[in-house]
Amino acid sequence: MERNLKLIIEYEGTRYHGWQRQGDLPTIQKIIEEAIFTITRESSRLTSSGRTDAGVHALGQVANFTTRSRLPLINLLRGMNSLLPDDIKIKDISEAPPDFHARFNAKSKTYIYNIDNSPVPSVFYRNFAWHIHEALDLGKMAEAAEFLKGEHDFMSFCAAGHETKTYIRQISAAEFSRKGRLISFRVESTGFLKYMVRNLVGTLAYVGKEKITPKCFRDIIGARDRTVAGPTAPPRGLFLESVKY
Amino acid sequence: MERNLKLIIEYEGTRYHGWQRQGDLPTIQKIIEEAIFTITRESSRLTSSGRTDAGVHALGQVANFTTRSRLPLINLLRGMNSLLPDDIKIKDISEAPPDFHARFNAKSKTYIYNIDNSPVPSVFYRNFAWHIHEALDLGKMAEAAEFLKGEHDFMSFCAAGHETKTYIRQISAAEFSRKGRLISFRVESTGFLKYMVRNLVGTLAYVGKEKITPKCFRDIIGARDRTVAGPTAPPRGLFLESVKY
Repeated sequence: MERNLKLIIEYEGTRYHGWQRQGDLPTIQKIIEEAIFTITRESSRLTSSGRTDAGVHALGQVANFTTRSRLPLINLLRGMNSLLPDDIKIKDISEAPPDFHARFNAKSKTYIYNIDNSPVPSVFYRNFAWHIHEALDLGKMAEAAEFLKGEHDFMSFCAAGHETKTYIRQISAAEFSRKGRLISFRVESTGFLKYMVRNLVGTLAYVGKEKITPKCFRDIIGARDRTVAGPTAPPRGLFLESVKY
Repeated sequence: MERNLKLIIEYEGTRYHGWQRQGDLPTIQKIIEEAIFTITRESSRLTSSGRTDAGVHALGQVANFTTRSRLPLINLLRGMNSLLPDDIKIKDISEAPPDFHARFNAKSKTYIYNIDNSPVPSVFYRNFAWHIHEALDLGKMAEAAEFLKGEHDFMSFCAAGHETKTYIRQISAAEFSRKGRLISFRVESTGFLKYMVRNLVGTLAYVGKEKITPKCFRDIIGARDRTVAGPTAPPRGLFLESVKY
């Protein structure tokens, strides 16, 4: 009897070449698949909700794999966590229906992007936020982010090399919050294009620095042209928060 | 004209053998003194509010040094931060009176100790909190912490090898708070003995696990005997938050 197991995974991406297997390079997928092999003695292939890039973190990445192992869930969880390095941990494991697919069944994903907005970068955020020393107008950034909500063609924020039938995605949440020096942008969408969150944040930072207006940001969405958007924000500020099914 | 300069310093202690110089070992003091030398071309000796142990962090360590350099403060600040590694940063630099001494003039110090109280340790707290998977009774821990307030002889919580005339210290704040899985203990005192916060937290964790009662904790304070207190909590959860003058 083959089981389909669903994992919820937390990781700090700093030391890794992203989620996806790339030969012998250290990637999150490779490290977890090796832990599964050690415990089950089967080669399993993990299917995640989507790849994350090098340096990007996850609070709740979701992945599934099939196995013939009959080990109880708690033993699998403890065994995997005892083998995994301390920057990758399985937060939860559960039995999923046979047809559950972590990528195809995902209804929406939520990302958080952190900005350390202060004169001197915090040592504690150095791997977890983009340091911007200039003052940012958070009101204007929030005003611009409002234009993201709803269904739009996000081609202006898609990196070259993303193969997709359509650039249309539906954003249901796009909010800024500030806690002391830390500004967080939280965005939920039916799906994300390559570098989409980091391109959005890079352009929203232009709004915060008053290089462009919120209305100009709206025009950039409408332009469907990558060359008019701002720079790509660095990966270290980005967290995959959760995936909804 | 010699200037006396006061620094406020943030650091992650993970990679260092504590604050204090120890020959060629990497310590916070050594790294900062080398940065000062590079900029001023003078050998300066830093005086801090007190040493922190290996693995202990600081949000607001205070130190002072004298120099004949006439460089403006902003140049010193920027120059030092450009030379320092990204886990040590000078948050502020200011001119202090000639007799200012970061250790002798300190009126009180505040430490924070973090506990990651959850079944699986968070990858993001692995260098910043003590992971305790058992449920902790925070109410009982807070009740016990109340007994710390005021003037007491804290010999029960002092590690061997601390040379001091008296073990009496005055604690003005000792509070627990919880935010999700993270429990924080904040303690302010006129001074701290060797390993004192970590020994307090190790013993308070016994209270939280209901191995001992809050009243028993009060008796341990009164016993003036290190052997009756709990274990020393690990350094990674400890932060020197601030120093008052």
